Amino acid sequence: MLDALRDRLAEVADLGHAAAVLEWDQETFMPPGGAEGRGRQIATLRRIAHERFTDPAVGEWLAAARPETDLDRALVRVTRRDWDRATLLPARLVSEKAEASARAMEAWKAARETDAFALFAPHLAYVLALAREEADLVRPLVAAERGPGYAPSAADARYDALLDEYEPGASTASVAETFRQLREGLVPLVAAAAEAPAPDDSFLRVPFDADAQWAFGLDVAERLGYSLDHGRQDRSAHPFTTSFGTTDVRVTTRVDPAFFPTAFFSTVHEAGHGIYEQGFAPGLEGTPLADGASLGVHESQSRLYENLVARGGPFWTWAYPRLQARFPHLADVPRRAFVRAVNRVEPSLIRVEADELTYHLHVLLRFELERALLSGDLPVADLPGAWRDGMRDLLGVAPNTDADGCLQDVHWSLGAVGYFPTYTLGTLMSVQLWNAADRDLGGLDALLAAGEFGPLLGWLREHVHRWGRAKTADEVLRDATGSGLDAAPWLAYAEAKVKRLYDLS
Amino acid sequence: MLDALRDRLAEVADLGHAAAVLEWDQETFMPPGGAEGRGRQIATLRRIAHERFTDPAVGEWLAAARPETDLDRALVRVTRRDWDRATLLPARLVSEKAEASARAMEAWKAARETDAFALFAPHLAYVLALAREEADLVRPLVAAERGPGYAPSAADARYDALLDEYEPGASTASVAETFRQLREGLVPLVAAAAEAPAPDDSFLRVPFDADAQWAFGLDVAERLGYSLDHGRQDRSAHPFTTSFGTTDVRVTTRVDPAFFPTAFFSTVHEAGHGIYEQGFAPGLEGTPLADGASLGVHESQSRLYENLVARGGPFWTWAYPRLQARFPHLADVPRRAFVRAVNRVEPSLIRVEADELTYHLHVLLRFELERALLSGDLPVADLPGAWRDGMRDLLGVAPNTDADGCLQDVHWSLGAVGYFPTYTLGTLMSVQLWNAADRDLGGLDALLAAGEFGPLLGWLREHVHRWGRAKTADEVLRDATGSGLDAAPWLAYAEAKVKRLYDLS
Repeated sequence: MLDALRDRLAEVADLGHAAAVLEWDQETFMPPGGAEGRGRQIATLRRIAHERFTDPAVGEWLAAARPETDLDRALVRVTRRDWDRATLLPARLVSEKAEASARAMEAWKAARETDAFALFAPHLAYVLALAREEADLVRPLVAAERGPGYAPSAADARYDALLDEYEPGASTASVAETFRQLREGLVPLVAAAAEAPAPDDSFLRVPFDADAQWAFGLDVAERLGYSLDHGRQDRSAHPFTTSFGTTDVRVTTRVDPAFFPTAFFSTVHEAGHGIYEQGFAPGLEGTPLADGASLGVHESQSRLYENLVARGGPFWTWAYPRLQARFPHLADVPRRAFVRAVNRVEPSLIRVEADELTYHLHVLLRFELERALLSGDLPVADLPGAWRDGMRDLLGVAPNTDADGCLQDVHWSLGAVGYFPTYTLGTLMSVQLWNAADRDLGGLDALLAAGEFGPLLGWLREHVHRWGRAKTADEVLRDATGSGLDAAPWLAYAEAKVKRLYDLS
Repeated sequence: MLDALRDRLAEVADLGHAAAVLEWDQETFMPPGGAEGRGRQIATLRRIAHERFTDPAVGEWLAAARPETDLDRALVRVTRRDWDRATLLPARLVSEKAEASARAMEAWKAARETDAFALFAPHLAYVLALAREEADLVRPLVAAERGPGYAPSAADARYDALLDEYEPGASTASVAETFRQLREGLVPLVAAAAEAPAPDDSFLRVPFDADAQWAFGLDVAERLGYSLDHGRQDRSAHPFTTSFGTTDVRVTTRVDPAFFPTAFFSTVHEAGHGIYEQGFAPGLEGTPLADGASLGVHESQSRLYENLVARGGPFWTWAYPRLQARFPHLADVPRRAFVRAVNRVEPSLIRVEADELTYHLHVLLRFELERALLSGDLPVADLPGAWRDGMRDLLGVAPNTDADGCLQDVHWSLGAVGYFPTYTLGTLMSVQLWNAADRDLGGLDALLAAGEFGPLLGWLREHVHRWGRAKTADEVLRDATGSGLDAAPWLAYAEAKVKRLYDLS
């Protein structure tokens, strides 16, 4: 039974990886006229993969499976979970979701370009209606998994069902409580930083040769552990990581020839995702286990490398002379001034351009709003106003346009409700994992300052990467750190960093 | 029935195009470590496409189809042909062929690298045995198609069955007769050119900036009619054209920074293939009709653009000042000297590097040898000697190594017996088509000299491209030119060209 199951899963994985190659090409090299045909090809591959996976035979193989190893037990558990969820949704809903999202994304693009929220509003309303329908179908499954103690409000139960797709096992109530603690600590911290004199970052806003930026970023990514034998980096409008199997994991970035941080931190961020995907144990390949434990755990790896490593002083002790050699105009900029500049905290309007601290206030806002949208407490028409109010409340700034406000992100047009919180959950995890690695390895700062990235990589391989989905996010975190998710370590890290770089006491 | 058939064919086309994207990526951008996984993904896509196409339901839809338009009649005829052929071969033979070819190609690479024919010989023998098995299964189908007048020898019947895959409708006997005439005219022509003083081509063998070569070639390709809205060019070790549907047809080339003709003529050659694939009528998309009428017709388009257009004097009347502007060292080289240099005739060892004339002697040799190998008249062990004898006989030169001899081409390792002749058949067609276009358009030379490539493109679109496989190769040729395949026009063209460029009388 397990052999038949594995063969089918390998076929489904091949189809999924093939679709990923087509999507990668679409974002990197495809000529403009190829879009329509490409959309059809991807839809065909995804449809066949869905058919082969939801085949009743897979359910029978799962029911008859008698796994004897930990890995096989994990395989059956995770595959059963995916299969139950995939077979719950009627084909009509799956295709209606796909079509509604495609239309909503087109409407979202047009609305953002012309700052006309009204163009997007009916599509958002319909996508939310489908999300509610999906949530109501999935709720019983999520409830059954969580056992008799699970008793959420009706609204939370719906949001849980969607959140569970991205962050299996997470609950709205506990995320809300974590975010409440985070907000309590973060808002005054941002205010303190905003009151202090802002670090000078003018030397980052000058011409940086694009090829030299590319070479520097890729060299760092490779030294951190991203394998170019099993990956490559290309340009795309929006940076992303994609996997065609553990042996071919690709990243993309974009380069701003007049602002250094754009390409560099996006390169390191995506490399963090890529390093995770390259690090799954070989036995996981071709099965649903060869994926991140959750989006949060995935984000913990990208944020760990982007923020904990590459925005930290010790890393630049090693890297800064190398950077200065490539960009001679930095010769007169002291290292500490450079590190302060790439850590400048400043409330702003756009999430993806936000600094390490204010970023989470953007996520908190989205978490609040999407829960209210899903429950119906917030009518779609009121979203623009609620957005501006929330921005003022959390960040002290508000957009003049909806294009810079509630139309800035693609996620809702895709029906991806429950996705945003994982960005922050992953960041919280990243500090918990960092602290554990720091303890286990007897201090990371000295290693990074010496350019020795192997021990950190080895620790992450052992405690996070190799497991893929064979452990849940909670198991990964508890086994590696001894604790479940906790906002306190990140707050302590953020506070210490702000104090140090802003010379606060 | 036709709707169900069309849906299935569109699905099979999507799977085939997806596999083509993966193969393209494999040759252009894939990191080295991705090869194994990629091979598996492509095999999965090809297997599923084969299963969906050979499904008995397709046979039932074909039997029940009542096509009412010419296009639908062509669709049913061509699909029936492909389906009959695909369902004739047992799954065991299909997978054995795929595996044997994969092993043979590895052995061929190793044999070529170390000049050790013995490493390849057993694999070639096995691949030939499978080719015989396939031919014997397909023979009755080919015989039935050709009617009661068809009475080949046993050896020719086998070769016909394989040739028919690449050049539907062609017969060994008529190809042999055409090639006999070609040889008769060509051998003295090559000898005459070889006796005359060779044109100086030293100015082609100096540094040519690779980026400037790329830009010049791509600009020409686009002006000739290759659309970059529906295509793109990348680098690969071996130039090729691939299609992901009519709206995304890609070409590759390679650049020699110290020899101008390599990249330029390969760019124009592949552009000719690409222009054909971009020109299928939209109604053919997603069906087996959206492909070349035959490999010969396909090659007629690449050779027409490469040789008739881009090695011709009139083209360079327009193009040469542009080339000189990009490469100032050509300022002192007269146009006529340049045209003579890119048309230099010289017997040599390697087919893919051969000039426009001697190229066909390489093909004639392969045609003779592969027929003898298939029939068993030539034992595999005797191939290296037969190759050297044939080269001496046809070209007056012979290789010192098998790597430069019978191991130079990949085709036989792939089991592709019957493929080589299409290179020459297509070249013969290219001149027949050229002459017809020249007549219909009232003279091509003046148009090309003025850089007006639209009329030629329009003529080819109308008479060749738009039909795809809705006409057979013979129908395309007869409808466009009034004649079937004929070696005489090419011989007349070649003779006139040699006389003109070599100042012979």
